[in-house]
Amino acid sequence: MRTAILTVGTEILFGQIVNTNAAWLSQQLNDLGYDVMYHYTVGDNPQRLHDLIELAFRDCDLILTTGGLGPTQDDLTKEVICQTMGDSLVVHEPSVKVLEQYAKQRGRALTENNYKQANMPSRAIVLPNDCGTAPGFALESEEGGKWIMSMPGPPREMKRMFDLQIRPILEKWQDSVIYYRLLRTMGIGESLMETVLLPLIDGQTDPTIATYAKEGECSLRIASKRPTLEEAKAAVDEMTEKVAEIIGDAIFSYDNEELVEVVGRILKERNITVACAESCTGGLFAGALTEIPGISAVFDRGIVTYSNRAKIEELGVSKETLEKFGAVSLETAEEMACGLAKVSGCDLCVSVTGEAGPDSSEGKPVGTIYVGICYKGESHAVQIPMRNNGRSWNRKYAVLNMMHEIYKVIS
Amino acid sequence: MRTAILTVGTEILFGQIVNTNAAWLSQQLNDLGYDVMYHYTVGDNPQRLHDLIELAFRDCDLILTTGGLGPTQDDLTKEVICQTMGDSLVVHEPSVKVLEQYAKQRGRALTENNYKQANMPSRAIVLPNDCGTAPGFALESEEGGKWIMSMPGPPREMKRMFDLQIRPILEKWQDSVIYYRLLRTMGIGESLMETVLLPLIDGQTDPTIATYAKEGECSLRIASKRPTLEEAKAAVDEMTEKVAEIIGDAIFSYDNEELVEVVGRILKERNITVACAESCTGGLFAGALTEIPGISAVFDRGIVTYSNRAKIEELGVSKETLEKFGAVSLETAEEMACGLAKVSGCDLCVSVTGEAGPDSSEGKPVGTIYVGICYKGESHAVQIPMRNNGRSWNRKYAVLNMMHEIYKVIS
Repeated sequence: MRTAILTVGTEILFGQIVNTNAAWLSQQLNDLGYDVMYHYTVGDNPQRLHDLIELAFRDCDLILTTGGLGPTQDDLTKEVICQTMGDSLVVHEPSVKVLEQYAKQRGRALTENNYKQANMPSRAIVLPNDCGTAPGFALESEEGGKWIMSMPGPPREMKRMFDLQIRPILEKWQDSVIYYRLLRTMGIGESLMETVLLPLIDGQTDPTIATYAKEGECSLRIASKRPTLEEAKAAVDEMTEKVAEIIGDAIFSYDNEELVEVVGRILKERNITVACAESCTGGLFAGALTEIPGISAVFDRGIVTYSNRAKIEELGVSKETLEKFGAVSLETAEEMACGLAKVSGCDLCVSVTGEAGPDSSEGKPVGTIYVGICYKGESHAVQIPMRNNGRSWNRKYAVLNMMHEIYKVIS
Repeated sequence: MRTAILTVGTEILFGQIVNTNAAWLSQQLNDLGYDVMYHYTVGDNPQRLHDLIELAFRDCDLILTTGGLGPTQDDLTKEVICQTMGDSLVVHEPSVKVLEQYAKQRGRALTENNYKQANMPSRAIVLPNDCGTAPGFALESEEGGKWIMSMPGPPREMKRMFDLQIRPILEKWQDSVIYYRLLRTMGIGESLMETVLLPLIDGQTDPTIATYAKEGECSLRIASKRPTLEEAKAAVDEMTEKVAEIIGDAIFSYDNEELVEVVGRILKERNITVACAESCTGGLFAGALTEIPGISAVFDRGIVTYSNRAKIEELGVSKETLEKFGAVSLETAEEMACGLAKVSGCDLCVSVTGEAGPDSSEGKPVGTIYVGICYKGESHAVQIPMRNNGRSWNRKYAVLNMMHEIYKVIS
């Protein structure tokens, strides 16, 4: 089915925000086997919005729109769609109730323009919004066969509405099924991966294998499009086994898990208590690990020792080590991990110290990062491969490598 | 001048990459006073590309395109533009020389399809590419007055070509200038903001005022288009004052700064030493604050006390408080902040404890969050307005509110 994605929002034409909605929806639609022909973005202007809908329907049967469903005067996506599709807006009572409940929970009064959000095209299937105030809708053309599905603009609301309500409809419409698996690897570059997998990739039409470099790691997508899910799944599973024979060591997830999820899962499963001591990452490691629900069962504490004083007071790093080798050193990294093990009594303690930039505090090159590990009394420290792509990137890269060092020890 | 941005590239329709080119170009064009009416994205398909150019010229006088200028078979932006604009491709000798030199420097031979990149529309102004192989061009319509300017797709090449070659042309054409200011607020909803500002917004054509809700906060864009920068700036400044009279208390930045930047700036300027004690945010607050370069001058340490044991050992929270009021309570939040002040000796200590979800550990509703502040010996704690949008959101929302509580104390 030929599809267009129509984004409504002046802020995108101003360049204030990047249109990530269109990219995300494109991925989902392609995965479902739908052909995305166009992305359009237009401001909150009735005539131009109307013209683009007409244009899209010339060679598409489905338009997905995001944005313009809000409560303010310039939100007019619904009004224009109604007019273009020969329908009219009516009060949708269940949505009024939801709005009133939403306001009540927050102790606010509803304004006149809030109520506008509960008006819906009379023929539409209304798509409730369970994490915002603007419901969406799916509306078929009067003559039938052409559909517009409208979702709110905020990505979180849009994604949830798509996943829970639009995806099932689109799946039902499809006569073949795409199944895919995303393998995640670390410690192998994209070029090398492509080279060693070339015998599997070359001349292969189904399943297809595609590699994607992500910052610090590399993913592999194995996809098959077949008449039934069973056939597609079998083809993907067979290819996955072949791939695993070649690069199995580098794969940390066969199921598109983030490394932090894998690490968190193993820590919880094996009941390994954990604590961390961070310098250059400033809390990002603890922040990433505690994103995992239920991690409180094993995560005891994290200490961000930004100053040398804090490293000495909180972790018992020796003044001599700091003076002789510097705060950014293998020796300090290892003492941080060991010191934390003493303080916390945890099975596994990880530490990090490095130069995140933009300036170097001790004269070591920006991008220098050391990770220390103390696991059940055994300790070591490593320098992670040197890169420097700016402060923010360097910090995330350090967190990823801390996760990888833990993974190597516990997997 | 009314402008459309046309992105050519199948990889965008597949959702493999996000269209950041369109956002960047929109910013530049708006800042130059050009009205961006549309973003279009289309694959490498001659008919659809042709149709979109025709459509865009119905109400735009300028089209900027990116992508499709490469050496491969499916790169056909130039061919289609030539046909649509009534021109034909000819060999552009200076570009041939550049290509040959480029290949020579890299010790490569030029293939047949490399030479294709040196073919240019006969009437075009050719725009040399000094960091890639595909030159761009600017081409006027046969009847005059309508322009297409084509740039390569890779962002680095595109931006450089725009800055060095297209921007000067567009500046020369312009007879008015847009100036705008982005105000950032917290503690006031979008609907309420629009309601109280209605007298200023209603019937206003210049300056324009637009509101944008972001998670947990709300922005306000005040823009003016005038013959000179001075006039535009004066109009925006005047309107900014009127807005400030009504909602000044809620504005934390008049210059599109993030709240964390504002807080970090004030802490550094006033040399206020700071430390944090986090429970439910698990290090995210420290991670956010340490994103600010140079914050090490005032940020001493952060302690993530996830377990009750860590709260007692690291911060000296009393066992009685934890048992009587629970770990998620005003009392615990305040004791965390005060305990940290004792341990660290910092001027300002902030703490947080709450139920991030998905499950509640102590029976308090998920979304319950308390923030404690101890500033130069004075302490207090507050409950932040109750919301629950899932673990990840709740944690970010808690960090934003910690920043806001600090802001209230130090601003």
